[in-house]
Amino acid sequence: MTDHLEKLKEISKQCRGDILKMTYVANSGHPGGSMSSIDILVTLYSFANVFPKDPWNENRDRIVISHGHISPGVYSTLAAYGFVNREEVIAGFRHPASIFEGHITRGIPGVEWTTGNLGQGLSAGVGFALAAKYKNKDYHVFVVMSDGESAKGQVQEARRTARKYNLDNLTVMVDYNDIQISGHAHEVMYVDIKSEFEAAGWRVIEIDGHDHEQILSALKIAKNDGQPTAIIAHTTIGKGVDFMEDKPDYHGKPLSKDELEKALQQLGIENDVEKYIELRKKLPVKAHEKVKLSYEININNGVPRIYDKSTDNRSTLGRAIADLATINDNVVAVDCDLKGSVKLDFLDKERPDRIVELGVQEHNAAALAGALSADGIVTFFADFGVFGVDETFNQHRLNAINNTNLKVVVTHCGIDVGEDGKTHHALNYIGAPLAWYGFKVIVPADPNQTDRAVRYVASQYGNYVIAMGRSKLEPIRKEDGKIFFDENYKFEYGKMDVLREGNDGVIYCLGSVVPNVLKAHDILKSKGINFAVINVSCPYDLDENILKKYSNFVVTVEDHNVLNGLGSLIAQKYFELGILPGKFIKLGLSEFPVSGDSKLLFEIYGLSGEKIAETILDKLSCK
Amino acid sequence: MTDHLEKLKEISKQCRGDILKMTYVANSGHPGGSMSSIDILVTLYSFANVFPKDPWNENRDRIVISHGHISPGVYSTLAAYGFVNREEVIAGFRHPASIFEGHITRGIPGVEWTTGNLGQGLSAGVGFALAAKYKNKDYHVFVVMSDGESAKGQVQEARRTARKYNLDNLTVMVDYNDIQISGHAHEVMYVDIKSEFEAAGWRVIEIDGHDHEQILSALKIAKNDGQPTAIIAHTTIGKGVDFMEDKPDYHGKPLSKDELEKALQQLGIENDVEKYIELRKKLPVKAHEKVKLSYEININNGVPRIYDKSTDNRSTLGRAIADLATINDNVVAVDCDLKGSVKLDFLDKERPDRIVELGVQEHNAAALAGALSADGIVTFFADFGVFGVDETFNQHRLNAINNTNLKVVVTHCGIDVGEDGKTHHALNYIGAPLAWYGFKVIVPADPNQTDRAVRYVASQYGNYVIAMGRSKLEPIRKEDGKIFFDENYKFEYGKMDVLREGNDGVIYCLGSVVPNVLKAHDILKSKGINFAVINVSCPYDLDENILKKYSNFVVTVEDHNVLNGLGSLIAQKYFELGILPGKFIKLGLSEFPVSGDSKLLFEIYGLSGEKIAETILDKLSCK
Repeated sequence: MTDHLEKLKEISKQCRGDILKMTYVANSGHPGGSMSSIDILVTLYSFANVFPKDPWNENRDRIVISHGHISPGVYSTLAAYGFVNREEVIAGFRHPASIFEGHITRGIPGVEWTTGNLGQGLSAGVGFALAAKYKNKDYHVFVVMSDGESAKGQVQEARRTARKYNLDNLTVMVDYNDIQISGHAHEVMYVDIKSEFEAAGWRVIEIDGHDHEQILSALKIAKNDGQPTAIIAHTTIGKGVDFMEDKPDYHGKPLSKDELEKALQQLGIENDVEKYIELRKKLPVKAHEKVKLSYEININNGVPRIYDKSTDNRSTLGRAIADLATINDNVVAVDCDLKGSVKLDFLDKERPDRIVELGVQEHNAAALAGALSADGIVTFFADFGVFGVDETFNQHRLNAINNTNLKVVVTHCGIDVGEDGKTHHALNYIGAPLAWYGFKVIVPADPNQTDRAVRYVASQYGNYVIAMGRSKLEPIRKEDGKIFFDENYKFEYGKMDVLREGNDGVIYCLGSVVPNVLKAHDILKSKGINFAVINVSCPYDLDENILKKYSNFVVTVEDHNVLNGLGSLIAQKYFELGILPGKFIKLGLSEFPVSGDSKLLFEIYGLSGEKIAETILDKLSCK
Repeated sequence: MTDHLEKLKEISKQCRGDILKMTYVANSGHPGGSMSSIDILVTLYSFANVFPKDPWNENRDRIVISHGHISPGVYSTLAAYGFVNREEVIAGFRHPASIFEGHITRGIPGVEWTTGNLGQGLSAGVGFALAAKYKNKDYHVFVVMSDGESAKGQVQEARRTARKYNLDNLTVMVDYNDIQISGHAHEVMYVDIKSEFEAAGWRVIEIDGHDHEQILSALKIAKNDGQPTAIIAHTTIGKGVDFMEDKPDYHGKPLSKDELEKALQQLGIENDVEKYIELRKKLPVKAHEKVKLSYEININNGVPRIYDKSTDNRSTLGRAIADLATINDNVVAVDCDLKGSVKLDFLDKERPDRIVELGVQEHNAAALAGALSADGIVTFFADFGVFGVDETFNQHRLNAINNTNLKVVVTHCGIDVGEDGKTHHALNYIGAPLAWYGFKVIVPADPNQTDRAVRYVASQYGNYVIAMGRSKLEPIRKEDGKIFFDENYKFEYGKMDVLREGNDGVIYCLGSVVPNVLKAHDILKSKGINFAVINVSCPYDLDENILKKYSNFVVTVEDHNVLNGLGSLIAQKYFELGILPGKFIKLGLSEFPVSGDSKLLFEIYGLSGEKIAETILDKLSCK
């Protein structure tokens, strides 16, 4: 034991040196917090069941470092234990050609989650701990976080979730150095961390965060005490170098040359930075290849359901999720107190163990769902559009950065929501996810396409949004009255559906307004005017051949913000293709709508069948 | 006193009837929670210092109802006290032509804040309470909220803020009916509301929320006890009608005809709904005129500063805010533990009382800043782009809905951030605010334009984003070397600046890449190719005449997501104008970038002067 402690001390010392060196070499980074956390990190990586030579072993303990700016501390620890190459770390830190980015990145051996935006890591840890339960694995999840980020409300959401699901496989270590960028944490924004953990039902242990023996012993207790436990580790920022200790200045600033010399001397470490500076100079000016984790998906899609009668897309969504969860062991849905509205009640009846019910805690829910999806569970995050897209915008951006496998299924999109009004009219389900590189968006036209799209995304690794309205919709039919998306239909991502042919113009549309557009088509037809109707269920990936074919008079109709949705994407695509349609009309919402029956709202905002036809007729009568 | 209590009981009874009637007439709405909160509302509006006939009297107490779906409860109370017309409420509730929208709306007499997305109201209340302090007013702020929404992390952020600023003028009432949509709140997601308030330093009083005497007496204590106080009012959902009590079913569903008859009988109230149904039929199918609150701005812009040397835009931002706060009593800045980075340190030195420092609590900060700005204080919300735009996306959408007067000033935008990497590269400062109808976006080109833009927005009522990078920039100069944005320059919203003339093509650009574009201009010029360079500091409002004038070869360059930024807006504008440029190139980011020195990143992602010139030359050499 004493030998082990001596070794931890020695490693911590070396890591302190590496922290100072890599930030000096990069002339950038966060040494202060790294020095504060380093004894915790070095002890934790020695204690946890991790495998430097087989870093993604399915049985490994998951370690999430929530305050991702202490990347120098994390990378130096990983190097010390042989996960990564020490020279590459010190020379490459924060260089474009190096995987050792400014904030820790999922996929670097030993790094489970990309963090940096504070207060998100505990939610990810809760997601991993839930994944273990679903997979019947007994790995443990450790989350290390800072005191400053404990102010983030999402942290309390995550704490409550751990209690609700009795996550005895979860341990948190708080690096409590009482320093954040603007000064002492208790002055900037006092958080009574101990009381808040206790109010959420956690066990709390307080220790000296620079005493390896205390850290080790607390970890042993926490791992085995059958409940979620928080270890509050009292530390000193800049620990180990006298002039850095308890100084906010070194939070995000490397040492000067003289300071480095002095600091390394104090630590008793040779100053060999010149070597790394030389190595760094040889790095090419190019972006490193991305480190991305994913896994093979094994999903039985089940038997599609054909809907022949009017129903709401959200019921078919909920029905399909329940079908999938019944025949697959790896399908879970996350709910935020809306299960009756987003129609997870099917799942709740048939597989209640497969719903993670989080209440009104959307930020935690979105981050948790992302981590769960990244750790082997095909995860549906079901919510209203305003919560599942707008409220959780940045959580999904971070999920995208983490290359998760999340299916964001949002209902109550558009003015189709009706009476709940502008706070609840989700109008950015196409526009917003453009910010989350790699997310694909699907807006199904009817219950049948919804069923097929849900089964499709479950079988594809990657992040998807499926967005739908609230009201019941008739199944789309062919002109002969038969179901359009019938038993022969197979969802193909990026395929546009020609619902009606016509030579006088084309209407591109999606989602709740497709029936209105079909009605407009009929009205026009009764006047001898023939417009094609094309359903664009995948607005990000437009079919150029279709666009080229139909381009004399182009109309776009969407129950969406007209500034950043389908019309905007179609216009840009035509522009890129060098095609100027003879006429162009873009219909959608350009202001916050009022509340009211959705049929009235469609009329008021020009999206009813009659209004669409009227607008087209007006335009035809203009020169 | 007894008379008063009798009267409160009588009013509450009438309101219960009105709640059931208006939801029945609208066939939509939330009766259950309204019946649960009604005794609280009726007592509170009688207790508070409010003026039905002068509803926006500056000295009024501010009442924020956070669970905005109990609009039937709020509207019936407002009608009972003469703020609004009772017939109009019952007949018009949730009809497009009526101001009585599904969720309560700021601007309806007696309604201070539009809510509906849960967990936001306490932050708004904290903002109003801080506004009172800044204005030396002694009005009190009351926030009524539900137990279900107490799970939202933002609520704990707001509670801590109230303690930090010792908001003795703030009282919260929690309607604790233990029911939310999915069942009993303590089962859906248990929140130990009392302990959490206490952990945040609040006094807590528990009462029976249907006992008017207890409510009144708690309000008296809370108003006068010199600290923020929470009254936890234990209630029953659906209270007053036996078959509705303690049933989640009536959360969001009106009664049937038979149920209504039975319920009104129980309450001892005449069933006169037919009258309102008839009145409703007469309402026109059109949107009501928006109710919007604003105020006249009285701001001295001070003396612009001319920067002749390289400096970062954020320093001139911070300098201008400090200037404004020194000569105006109504200017405040909200910070989230980044004051040194967003350069509020000038303000911190010169007017430390004008910084609201909230730590790592961005959601609360954004909502609080919105309310503060709406209540007479010109408010700057300063943050990094990823936090001030992406993380707080929905909070700003709600600020926009509330027609606030917020100046979101975000630094560290784009890959100009450099080494902090993808989690910190804010790439949506143009694309995201398109979702917040009415927000204007300004991306200044250099320190001088930044100074002028900051002074400009302070003097305009309304919501603005000013976005900038991190690095130092040379002031933009004319070809003769003189400062471009000099002492004669006046910021005009929507004006494009022709920085260089040229006939071979045009480069539209903004923000951190303007110097790179000027360099590209010079490289091209040295080869005899003359491209105009146009600075587009207001990307939402493009000057059509300029676009028409320069359209042979169009290039857009932005340190922003290329899918939803300047290039996308310019392309759409040309498309709308029916102009197809001979050639078009759109430069920006199309993936999450790596971390590294910003100069290297500009080169890697094709945004350095050399790379821009190279791309243009390549295109010129193509057919």
